[in-house]
Amino acid sequence: MPADYRRIADFLKAAVAGRPPEDLARLQPHQREVAARVSGGGGTAPDAIDARWALPDLPETARPLLCDTRTRDEAAQYERNIEQFIGIARVPVGLIGPLRVNGMFAHRDYYVPLATTEATLVASYARGARLVTEAGGCTTLVVNEGVSRAPGFAFDTVVDAALFIAWTTTQWDDFRRVAAGTTRHGELVDLEVTLEGNHAYLGFEFTTGDASGQNMVTLATQAICAYIEAQSPVTPKYYFLEANLSGDKKATARSFLGVRGRKVTAEVRLPAALVEQRLHTTPERMVDYWRMSALGGVMSGSLGVQGHYANGLAALFIASGQDAATVAEAAVGVTRFERLDDGGLYAAVTLPNVIVGTIGGGTGLPTQRACLEIMGLHGSGHARALAEVATAVALAGELSISGALAAGQFAEAHRRLARERQPRDARDTPPA
Amino acid sequence: MPADYRRIADFLKAAVAGRPPEDLARLQPHQREVAARVSGGGGTAPDAIDARWALPDLPETARPLLCDTRTRDEAAQYERNIEQFIGIARVPVGLIGPLRVNGMFAHRDYYVPLATTEATLVASYARGARLVTEAGGCTTLVVNEGVSRAPGFAFDTVVDAALFIAWTTTQWDDFRRVAAGTTRHGELVDLEVTLEGNHAYLGFEFTTGDASGQNMVTLATQAICAYIEAQSPVTPKYYFLEANLSGDKKATARSFLGVRGRKVTAEVRLPAALVEQRLHTTPERMVDYWRMSALGGVMSGSLGVQGHYANGLAALFIASGQDAATVAEAAVGVTRFERLDDGGLYAAVTLPNVIVGTIGGGTGLPTQRACLEIMGLHGSGHARALAEVATAVALAGELSISGALAAGQFAEAHRRLARERQPRDARDTPPA
Amino acid sequence: MPADYRRIADFLKAAVAGRPPEDLARLQPHQREVAARVSGGGGTAPDAIDARWALPDLPETARPLLCDTRTRDEAAQYERNIEQFIGIARVPVGLIGPLRVNGMFAHRDYYVPLATTEATLVASYARGARLVTEAGGCTTLVVNEGVSRAPGFAFDTVVDAALFIAWTTTQWDDFRRVAAGTTRHGELVDLEVTLEGNHAYLGFEFTTGDASGQNMVTLATQAICAYIEAQSPVTPKYYFLEANLSGDKKATARSFLGVRGRKVTAEVRLPAALVEQRLHTTPERMVDYWRMSALGGVMSGSLGVQGHYANGLAALFIASGQDAATVAEAAVGVTRFERLDDGGLYAAVTLPNVIVGTIGGGTGLPTQRACLEIMGLHGSGHARALAEVATAVALAGELSISGALAAGQFAEAHRRLARERQPRDARDTPPA
Amino acid sequence: MPADYRRIADFLKAAVAGRPPEDLARLQPHQREVAARVSGGGGTAPDAIDARWALPDLPETARPLLCDTRTRDEAAQYERNIEQFIGIARVPVGLIGPLRVNGMFAHRDYYVPLATTEATLVASYARGARLVTEAGGCTTLVVNEGVSRAPGFAFDTVVDAALFIAWTTTQWDDFRRVAAGTTRHGELVDLEVTLEGNHAYLGFEFTTGDASGQNMVTLATQAICAYIEAQSPVTPKYYFLEANLSGDKKATARSFLGVRGRKVTAEVRLPAALVEQRLHTTPERMVDYWRMSALGGVMSGSLGVQGHYANGLAALFIASGQDAATVAEAAVGVTRFERLDDGGLYAAVTLPNVIVGTIGGGTGLPTQRACLEIMGLHGSGHARALAEVATAVALAGELSISGALAAGQFAEAHRRLARERQPRDARDTPPA
Repeated sequence: MPADYRRIADFLKAAVAGRPPEDLARLQPHQREVAARVSGGGGTAPDAIDARWALPDLPETARPLLCDTRTRDEAAQYERNIEQFIGIARVPVGLIGPLRVNGMFAHRDYYVPLATTEATLVASYARGARLVTEAGGCTTLVVNEGVSRAPGFAFDTVVDAALFIAWTTTQWDDFRRVAAGTTRHGELVDLEVTLEGNHAYLGFEFTTGDASGQNMVTLATQAICAYIEAQSPVTPKYYFLEANLSGDKKATARSFLGVRGRKVTAEVRLPAALVEQRLHTTPERMVDYWRMSALGGVMSGSLGVQGHYANGLAALFIASGQDAATVAEAAVGVTRFERLDDGGLYAAVTLPNVIVGTIGGGTGLPTQRACLEIMGLHGSGHARALAEVATAVALAGELSISGALAAGQFAEAHRRLARERQPRDARDTPPA
Repeated sequence: MPADYRRIADFLKAAVAGRPPEDLARLQPHQREVAARVSGGGGTAPDAIDARWALPDLPETARPLLCDTRTRDEAAQYERNIEQFIGIARVPVGLIGPLRVNGMFAHRDYYVPLATTEATLVASYARGARLVTEAGGCTTLVVNEGVSRAPGFAFDTVVDAALFIAWTTTQWDDFRRVAAGTTRHGELVDLEVTLEGNHAYLGFEFTTGDASGQNMVTLATQAICAYIEAQSPVTPKYYFLEANLSGDKKATARSFLGVRGRKVTAEVRLPAALVEQRLHTTPERMVDYWRMSALGGVMSGSLGVQGHYANGLAALFIASGQDAATVAEAAVGVTRFERLDDGGLYAAVTLPNVIVGTIGGGTGLPTQRACLEIMGLHGSGHARALAEVATAVALAGELSISGALAAGQFAEAHRRLARERQPRDARDTPPA
Repeated sequence: MPADYRRIADFLKAAVAGRPPEDLARLQPHQREVAARVSGGGGTAPDAIDARWALPDLPETARPLLCDTRTRDEAAQYERNIEQFIGIARVPVGLIGPLRVNGMFAHRDYYVPLATTEATLVASYARGARLVTEAGGCTTLVVNEGVSRAPGFAFDTVVDAALFIAWTTTQWDDFRRVAAGTTRHGELVDLEVTLEGNHAYLGFEFTTGDASGQNMVTLATQAICAYIEAQSPVTPKYYFLEANLSGDKKATARSFLGVRGRKVTAEVRLPAALVEQRLHTTPERMVDYWRMSALGGVMSGSLGVQGHYANGLAALFIASGQDAATVAEAAVGVTRFERLDDGGLYAAVTLPNVIVGTIGGGTGLPTQRACLEIMGLHGSGHARALAEVATAVALAGELSISGALAAGQFAEAHRRLARERQPRDARDTPPA
Repeated sequence: MPADYRRIADFLKAAVAGRPPEDLARLQPHQREVAARVSGGGGTAPDAIDARWALPDLPETARPLLCDTRTRDEAAQYERNIEQFIGIARVPVGLIGPLRVNGMFAHRDYYVPLATTEATLVASYARGARLVTEAGGCTTLVVNEGVSRAPGFAFDTVVDAALFIAWTTTQWDDFRRVAAGTTRHGELVDLEVTLEGNHAYLGFEFTTGDASGQNMVTLATQAICAYIEAQSPVTPKYYFLEANLSGDKKATARSFLGVRGRKVTAEVRLPAALVEQRLHTTPERMVDYWRMSALGGVMSGSLGVQGHYANGLAALFIASGQDAATVAEAAVGVTRFERLDDGGLYAAVTLPNVIVGTIGGGTGLPTQRACLEIMGLHGSGHARALAEVATAVALAGELSISGALAAGQFAEAHRRLARERQPRDARDTPPA
């Protein structure tokens, strides 16, 4: 995170060095009177909600927007998903489709709801979906699945740590049995071991059925750790249930090289005429764009090479009750464009960390469930299909945004949409 | 993305090899009749909304949840932020605080709204906020700011590309003037140049005032590119407005090493007694956890080392109208715990890519604006403060989750919350 | 690889833009008469050597230095290791030790020859070796081994690619048999499969006995590819024997997360008094240094965190006939310092890519063999021990250089050595 | 560094768990009698050399190979480059060329000496050089230069650290003056600042004339640090002269994104007929190979995408007296192949970290100087040209190895060379 001194100099001079002493003083910790604390008790009960809104400093205008009467009355439905509830954030949803997906698990024309506040996002994905569908749809394939949890164990010596690891590799059946006792849906399917000096990390890898599974693997791993504590011939000095080798909620080489959630690939073949008609460019120029942007990605030091998976994934995840924080890990992968012998365009995306569920988490909440039902993907038996649809959405987005950049329309779309919609009194508000 | 053959074998056998021919056939593109397309016209007008809901395959149960009468009537307020609108996703909001922030731009006790569907997230951040506040608050400091856009230009030879770059380095004043003509809030502040063979990439870096600025930098860069097209003594064979070197919407080494949005650092000092009282562990064990998890992060190949910035950032971003896709780039940084000479715990987080705005984007929508107003951070003049609050939230979260792991409570919290709230008929639903 | 425009401007102006046309002209390709080509024929025969030295433009002073009479006479001994031989590079060798290694494969006090032209390198490693030895030696442990070769196969569709992968996962026994037919020392031990759109990469992982094995795995993989060509039910459009997923000769996350050559960990415990006596600093300050430099490494975007493995590894590799290019892949890993409860210092290094051999390659050449014999590690049965010694050397180097930096002696050592040795007529030559 | 438990299980069982107690005991540190220590005194004086060879455990056969009479007599010439000298490692040198380089600094037909013990390496680079030369040579361009040193400073609070950084940004002229007092060849040209909590890292970037410069920047930075100690208005708790943010001796994103040594790009255009004649493949297939291997590199998590820069760089560095450990940092970059409109092949390599010198270090030693003289690049004024030649060598190597892989000859070359040269009594030695 280095910064050129010329640029940072102004900033720090303004922010720190040039400030009067009283300004610097406000950077100090202090024990002046603390405002009243938000109550953690009472869950979503109306009284508890009222108590939270009674905090002295909250603006009066906020409550009717976040918590109208109906929301207050129906708050109990959020009881399992939130603490210290004060209301509802409303995120607009746009619908795209049909998106034809020819997958092993997802195979039909899908309407896909996308929740976002970013102008042009839905329009861009809608264009990509149309293109994919007019080409006969994209082929999608889940090729691997798994979610890991990685406890770490500290020993006195590397010998103890190695003896411990050697022992764990003999406990596979017991680990599976213990894990199975905590869940009917998850299954321990792999174990990775890492020795670093006198530290041993275990990477338990589970399938998690139709749940995204982060909680499931935590509980199963805790049970395994309890078993280890009781049975291990070598006692760790201390251990932690998660030692940050699992890639949870962040982009990591480990997850990118392996799998987290589902690994899915999607491909489509676009005739040259279709590229010209819908994207106003040519397969050649799309490949030129891919080449330059792939190396741009490489030179930016990204994991994989891609354009904007995060846009579509975040919008789909928010709409369908996924954990939005997993965008950090899911939005990695490889996009490839190639010219076909017949002059058309081959396009493929491969996303190794599509971590989604169709049960558990936020999937049962009202609008989230409705969005899953629009896709026909709510409840048991649909998680792999949802992973395939998410990957097809990513492919549609890559085609549309690359097409806009290849055709020189990228800024145009943003400008037109921004201008058309500009309400009069917001003229000074810059688009963002 | 390699996978051990033993594990992938089952998957691919089931998914592909072992399937009957008719199953494989469904992976082929086909031109069978396509379902009706979602209408892009009409914006958020009631008729346009009705037309979309009239699509044949949408489930009847979905509309009342996503688009009740009031939503349909008030849809115009989303006109600038969404296309193909069909309704509203409702995401529950929990409130944490007070979180005492002693920053140069943010300096008071904040109540922070977090929108999430993940149980325990709000409770965990609330605990962290309490801890920070009881310690007298955290010090926060914005240390740099900027958002980049990176067009790429292709030439015949490396000599032409180098002559082009040499020319651009003489055009600084004109580039600034041209950029200034497109925005009153943004300013071109830096230029980076990259030569790769006969390809030249330019990295234009802007400050963007109180907007997150992705759109602003696109329009300014397009104007600069038009100027370049008109003035350059060397004509590119082709060029693209964005060649993927800007780190937009993805975790990259380039943004991590530089800045994207704001770079902010936050620190707090926790007396040992406070750690023991609130986290039920000791500063020593917290440092043990940090050491093992920092190296776990290193061995996972993450950018920086941290626990779960994405949880708090995603929840704050959704609540406050930020672009949720930017979680992919924002959730990187460095967390450091260290033991103080007085036996207490020093904790710091440094996030180089906090890309947030308090105007533009989704910040003017009803609930989003309300959430910003709860923090006193809506509108002009507040973006740096919001970046500091976001970083303070990240610090609070790191302390709470590390504390839970250090104290062995991590799984416990998940289990207790899951159990307490389990509705009777969901007993079979695994927590996720 | 972006560069700030202010800095690059001068360079490119000088290098390109400000040059007269005749200077730019010299950047063009041209077909002017080409000098005589170095003969590839004749191997190391005296006549062939003479013919090469008869090329018109070679300086007369060079031959006696590179190829004296004895070298010319004994050239045949290099016949298997070099083409277009013209003589011998002489690299000075320093000896360090004893270095006490308490490993499973290496367990004695070693004298280690290091070939380098960098002043202070040998002295620094000697100091580290003394420290390790006085502490009772370091424990070393090989924890995994393997070398991979990764062919890539292109198909028309993702379905074909997946069918191909599914088939390969059924051919394990045949792949092993075919590989076994090409080598008596190597063994196919694992297979990783990667699907990216319609491309399939196979990662064949071998043990290679006491050879470093890059050539062995190439020949074995070629045999497997011939088998695949003959047997596969799905025919690739084309394939390549190595598609760059093996990490050969470069630092990669994949090799860092897995193994290439041997993965070895080494640890040592240093009493506080010993740290003070030999390093003139304290365990506390060593840990302070580790913390700050580990995060420095993280913020530099390195693979793993370490100081200077490359120094010791390069010197050992050149001395002992290893492939010096593998320094690029071998010099990654994790160094950890920690304070012990008794006030001492715990230090560990873990290197996952120690790719060395004691037979084949350059190990049989005269001085290279002599250096291996000094360590008692020439020939069959010693590769694992050599990997442990290399890792112990890396540990010794980390301790010494960290100690110099922690004690503020880093520059001092360089200055003193540079000054003492400065011959009179080289006063103007800067040390480098 | 995780490993599948099935694979590591055997290893650890054999290595640790299954061993008898006496074997495990040998992993313990112990204070049994230590062998005699190699003497650090006496430098390269004949007596000192004799004393080292008199150590009891050295094999008698080694001395005549490493240190014959002449070497012992001439040892003084190595005095400034090595400690604890015992003799000379002999590495065979092959000559390739002519390699036509059309650079701004290097512009002629070069013969290039390569020191290696790896069979086929020289032959492969010779083929590539011939190809480049027959195409009219490659264009090369140095586009940036610099070497950094990065001290780290610890403070009590982030405010102190920020005040410190703000102060340093006002000291530019003094820092330059102080640095200039330590060297006549180097110049401070840039400063980067990094704030991480209460830690401040400064990145001093220097040009180093014709020396590779690592030592020069160390001494200059130490002088600056002394100035800082004396002048800074904020006193650090402690600081270290190098805090691992400089990328010294390792592959880092920071150096890859910036420059370390010289950043150089090289390009060549190959007519289709030439590709077919010399590489026995077509430009199309070369591009197919590039595409698949570039994505292979991406999926391996390398920095940049390339084949085998390390081979040529290591061989050139050893021959010409460079620091061989810098292969770890130098062997990163971007290779790009593209089809030209005329059916030919465009190829470019860009290496941002070519850290070489033509004075200082090992460049003045006998054979090293001779090798530089063969290229006409010894002494002042040649470092940029050497960087261009090194990059041209890398380009030649990429073309040759990619051609071999594209044409299916990769294994063939290794096998043929291995077989032809196999001496009778080495039949059992596997090639490596």
